[in-house]
Amino acid sequence: MDAGSESKLQLVHRHIRAFPDFPKKGILFRDICPILKDPAALTAVIDLFEEHVKKNHKRVDLIAGLDARGFLFGPLLAQRMGVGFVLIRKKGKLPGATVSVAYDLEYGKAEAEIQADAVSPGQKVLLIDDLLATGGTLYAACELMRQQQAEVLGCMVVIELKELNGIDRVKPHSVFSLVQY
Amino acid sequence: MDAGSESKLQLVHRHIRAFPDFPKKGILFRDICPILKDPAALTAVIDLFEEHVKKNHKRVDLIAGLDARGFLFGPLLAQRMGVGFVLIRKKGKLPGATVSVAYDLEYGKAEAEIQADAVSPGQKVLLIDDLLATGGTLYAACELMRQQQAEVLGCMVVIELKELNGIDRVKPHSVFSLVQY
Repeated sequence: MDAGSESKLQLVHRHIRAFPDFPKKGILFRDICPILKDPAALTAVIDLFEEHVKKNHKRVDLIAGLDARGFLFGPLLAQRMGVGFVLIRKKGKLPGATVSVAYDLEYGKAEAEIQADAVSPGQKVLLIDDLLATGGTLYAACELMRQQQAEVLGCMVVIELKELNGIDRVKPHSVFSLVQY
Repeated sequence: MDAGSESKLQLVHRHIRAFPDFPKKGILFRDICPILKDPAALTAVIDLFEEHVKKNHKRVDLIAGLDARGFLFGPLLAQRMGVGFVLIRKKGKLPGATVSVAYDLEYGKAEAEIQADAVSPGQKVLLIDDLLATGGTLYAACELMRQQQAEVLGCMVVIELKELNGIDRVKPHSVFSLVQY
């Protein structure tokens, strides 16, 4: 990584806050709101994502982002790259014909959903979210793409919580993260 | 409006779909997903918002966007203008000290929430969301800003559903919309 990228990464790092015991006791919550509030830090996130994509993927057709914090970064990266953005939502939010995949939460299940015409067979898609924890939502998102016969190029997140091993859940797809804890 | 802006507006218009009886019978749902999927249409939305802001506001300090579809447009406009973006979320999603305001839904109540340090007294804030319906959420967002002694410059939405009179709910603040039904 060159000096410019390294200083962008440090800028991103400095704009992540930690809150103990949120949303419940024992969980250290990583807060990305300061990144959004600082235009230079947000630009740095998109610069670093774009740099990674250009280095690793010859062709990208779509960026797909996860409800809700993936929506903060996905359209910015999509616009930067001149491609479209597709919404992956919690079940029941999207009109028209949809496809959904269930995944496990700590307690119970949830479902991720896309519109049936959101992606076409053979399209190359990058998935984006703010954070990789246990990987349940990203796993479901990859599975949605597979069912629609789209090709998942990889997943991108701002933060990876390494001890939760989300990377294993999302395999064989890769996860690129800017900051790891 | 000049010819360029008029053609951008037509582009946006063509990328909004209508789905009858969603999320329930009798409701005609306006779907903005095609805007996100077409990079030119999404650029047009941000161009038109930026044009409106430059014409009407000398100084903007922050863009605040509503969970979740306001997150799709807000960071793009904030980056375009070189200012920060603040998240207004459904209650319980934000860590640290927060401030919340309740508002009426068709059945029951909901609460909009921001971090207590999200805005500072005197800051000039533009609120952004995808759609103005009854105006409950935007009303709550304006009220949050007022409680934090920030100044609401106005609200911006892609779509206004005129017959629901959301504009009255948000008064005395103005609502700028690109497309009206």
